[in-house]
Amino acid sequence: MPVGNIAFPEMDSLSGLKLGAVGAAIKRQGRDDILVIELAEGSTTSGVFTQNAFCAAPVTIARRHLQQGSAVRYLVINSGNANACTGAQGEEDALAVCRAIAEQRGVAVEQVLPFSTGVIGERLPLQKMLAAIPAALDNLSADNWERAARTIMTTDTVPKAARRQFEIEGRTITVAGIAKGSGMIKPNMATMLGFIATDAAVTADVLDVVVKRAADKSFNRVVVDGDTSTNDACMLMATGQSAAPAIDRCEGEVYEAFVEAVEAVFTELAHMLVRDGEGATKFIEVNVQGGGSEDECRKVAYAIAQSPLIKTAFFASDPNWGRIVAAIGYAGVEDLDASRVSVRLNEVLIVDKGQRAASYSEEQGQRVMSQSDIAINVDLGRGDSQVIVWTTDLSHDYVRINAEYRT
Amino acid sequence: MPVGNIAFPEMDSLSGLKLGAVGAAIKRQGRDDILVIELAEGSTTSGVFTQNAFCAAPVTIARRHLQQGSAVRYLVINSGNANACTGAQGEEDALAVCRAIAEQRGVAVEQVLPFSTGVIGERLPLQKMLAAIPAALDNLSADNWERAARTIMTTDTVPKAARRQFEIEGRTITVAGIAKGSGMIKPNMATMLGFIATDAAVTADVLDVVVKRAADKSFNRVVVDGDTSTNDACMLMATGQSAAPAIDRCEGEVYEAFVEAVEAVFTELAHMLVRDGEGATKFIEVNVQGGGSEDECRKVAYAIAQSPLIKTAFFASDPNWGRIVAAIGYAGVEDLDASRVSVRLNEVLIVDKGQRAASYSEEQGQRVMSQSDIAINVDLGRGDSQVIVWTTDLSHDYVRINAEYRT
Repeated sequence: MPVGNIAFPEMDSLSGLKLGAVGAAIKRQGRDDILVIELAEGSTTSGVFTQNAFCAAPVTIARRHLQQGSAVRYLVINSGNANACTGAQGEEDALAVCRAIAEQRGVAVEQVLPFSTGVIGERLPLQKMLAAIPAALDNLSADNWERAARTIMTTDTVPKAARRQFEIEGRTITVAGIAKGSGMIKPNMATMLGFIATDAAVTADVLDVVVKRAADKSFNRVVVDGDTSTNDACMLMATGQSAAPAIDRCEGEVYEAFVEAVEAVFTELAHMLVRDGEGATKFIEVNVQGGGSEDECRKVAYAIAQSPLIKTAFFASDPNWGRIVAAIGYAGVEDLDASRVSVRLNEVLIVDKGQRAASYSEEQGQRVMSQSDIAINVDLGRGDSQVIVWTTDLSHDYVRINAEYRT
Repeated sequence: MPVGNIAFPEMDSLSGLKLGAVGAAIKRQGRDDILVIELAEGSTTSGVFTQNAFCAAPVTIARRHLQQGSAVRYLVINSGNANACTGAQGEEDALAVCRAIAEQRGVAVEQVLPFSTGVIGERLPLQKMLAAIPAALDNLSADNWERAARTIMTTDTVPKAARRQFEIEGRTITVAGIAKGSGMIKPNMATMLGFIATDAAVTADVLDVVVKRAADKSFNRVVVDGDTSTNDACMLMATGQSAAPAIDRCEGEVYEAFVEAVEAVFTELAHMLVRDGEGATKFIEVNVQGGGSEDECRKVAYAIAQSPLIKTAFFASDPNWGRIVAAIGYAGVEDLDASRVSVRLNEVLIVDKGQRAASYSEEQGQRVMSQSDIAINVDLGRGDSQVIVWTTDLSHDYVRINAEYRT
């Protein structure tokens, strides 16, 4: 069960976008595992992909198709098999899936982008997938959000979606999307997929800027820089069906309102990934400020967010501030003056000038720890930079889930 | 229970060194928690210390005393309290302990080095410690190795010692020592202490070189660079009581034989720390070769050794090679060509040219995984550099131990 309540929001249809899901028994019978997203003609699409040197075949193909510049009309996503470390055969398989959709819908193969998530190193069950695709196309519908969100789940325990609307000159613009991913403790390999759409008309150049900026402030704050899975991808699609003015440059009122809505959807989805982290019992925000640079704030934030010792202490609701202080100390900030460092758990000052705060009592720490949402607020006392990342605790269930993943 | 069998070796007396232990109820009653090591006049001492910005008071004092250059005659080590993040008061307390010994034994306070391991942020129980020290001095004895090794334990489940001897010109030189530390899963804060002595006559300059070199090849291979606890320290002491030729330069037959013996003792102790890692059920050697530089081999080795996903898979005896490949991919090696990478589990080839090896079967993987000692052998296929690190799996017991540490 996720930390806090992740309710599935009202997800009305988004003009110009349809979703079709089907079960192909890729990993197991009785669940949907192929999702097709259809975009209206005239849509634009951009995306960010994993930086992993072992990127999966679908990532290679999706990136290539996007670069070829034809308008994307279909995205096809399967769960249950990552099609990663499958070499040239894997690329042929991913292309075969795209080709099937292209042929059945009368578009070019470059107008179809493939995505996969699941076990690494096994071939896609191509025949099963090709046999199921017609049914996915048959049930394409604008009201299929929840089924779509469930289709792309792997170890996720709940489907994840978010939505924002705003008005410009009396016209409504909607931003809505789904995401999957739950291994956010340290998400080496827990593939994160996000598919976010808007009915605004947005040029591809503007989409490129917005998707990078929003991902950097959201999904990349729960993912260690470079610690991406072989299959991570986050797509932003604009159908252009809204009557609101088109967004064709990175400035102005419409642009700013659009960016705000996209970032809100991205951040809400990113938080959901953390809340549904494997075995998570706590949602932890690590907020490092007072740094001499963003880089040193990031080092400290990740040292804390990745420390199994801190994470197990949080699981035990133990305000073990010594472990936090030690992580700050080994994060690699040059010439760190320990006597200028303070740490607060939520509002409770626990470390002042590098030592246990005189005002601090274990009772205060216990009171913070009894909550499910906790902020670790670090002030390095040496500058104005700030970085926030989100993570979870490390529980017995994390070990159980990841020890049993393939069984 | 540690992985494999850590038997306490035969530890004969080492001429010029005595050990005295006593219980002072620092954390709990009924166990020894203060160890005093006495070195004969004429001994030399060198050491390596934590790089953590929040280094503990005893580290500050020990470093300072060593730098002052007086011959060290006593080391005093307590378990149960780290005397870390205790500010100026902590330094006064550490000095008070040194002063008590100095006064009772008629040496200068600079000739006493303090060490602490245990909970962070609490004052040393100074009165209890001062009251107990005379008894520790009273039972100083050359045959106290096992009791000494037990005295410095914290979450260790077994006392750890190692010993080597070699002959030079018909004279025997002995290297023998003890160590503590068991949180080696990722040892952010699991204080590692090592006290290794020789009866050889070795100049302080040579000791400086040898202790750094040996620590780099042993304890620093189970500790992420910079990821040191507030209290880590490893001391190398030479009593000069052997009749063998003195070692006063970093070359020649005696020097080489000495280095070999010291490195063997250090490495054996380092392996024991890993084998006694919290909750460990497997001893894992990560051997990365074929790198363009040691730095890139190190990145890959630590990406693997620190991945909770890989470590939980090993706990489950699951040869989940996809997780290993993903860690190699996100380790940050620039322009890594995945198609040149191979991975072996012990001798079994599982990844060949970046893909699952054609010869590999799950049965082979399972057979390797059923063993308690496993090597992950990675070849990056781009150079001649190599780095080896050691780690353990991540088990339910790791979470239990670290969640309950302070209770």
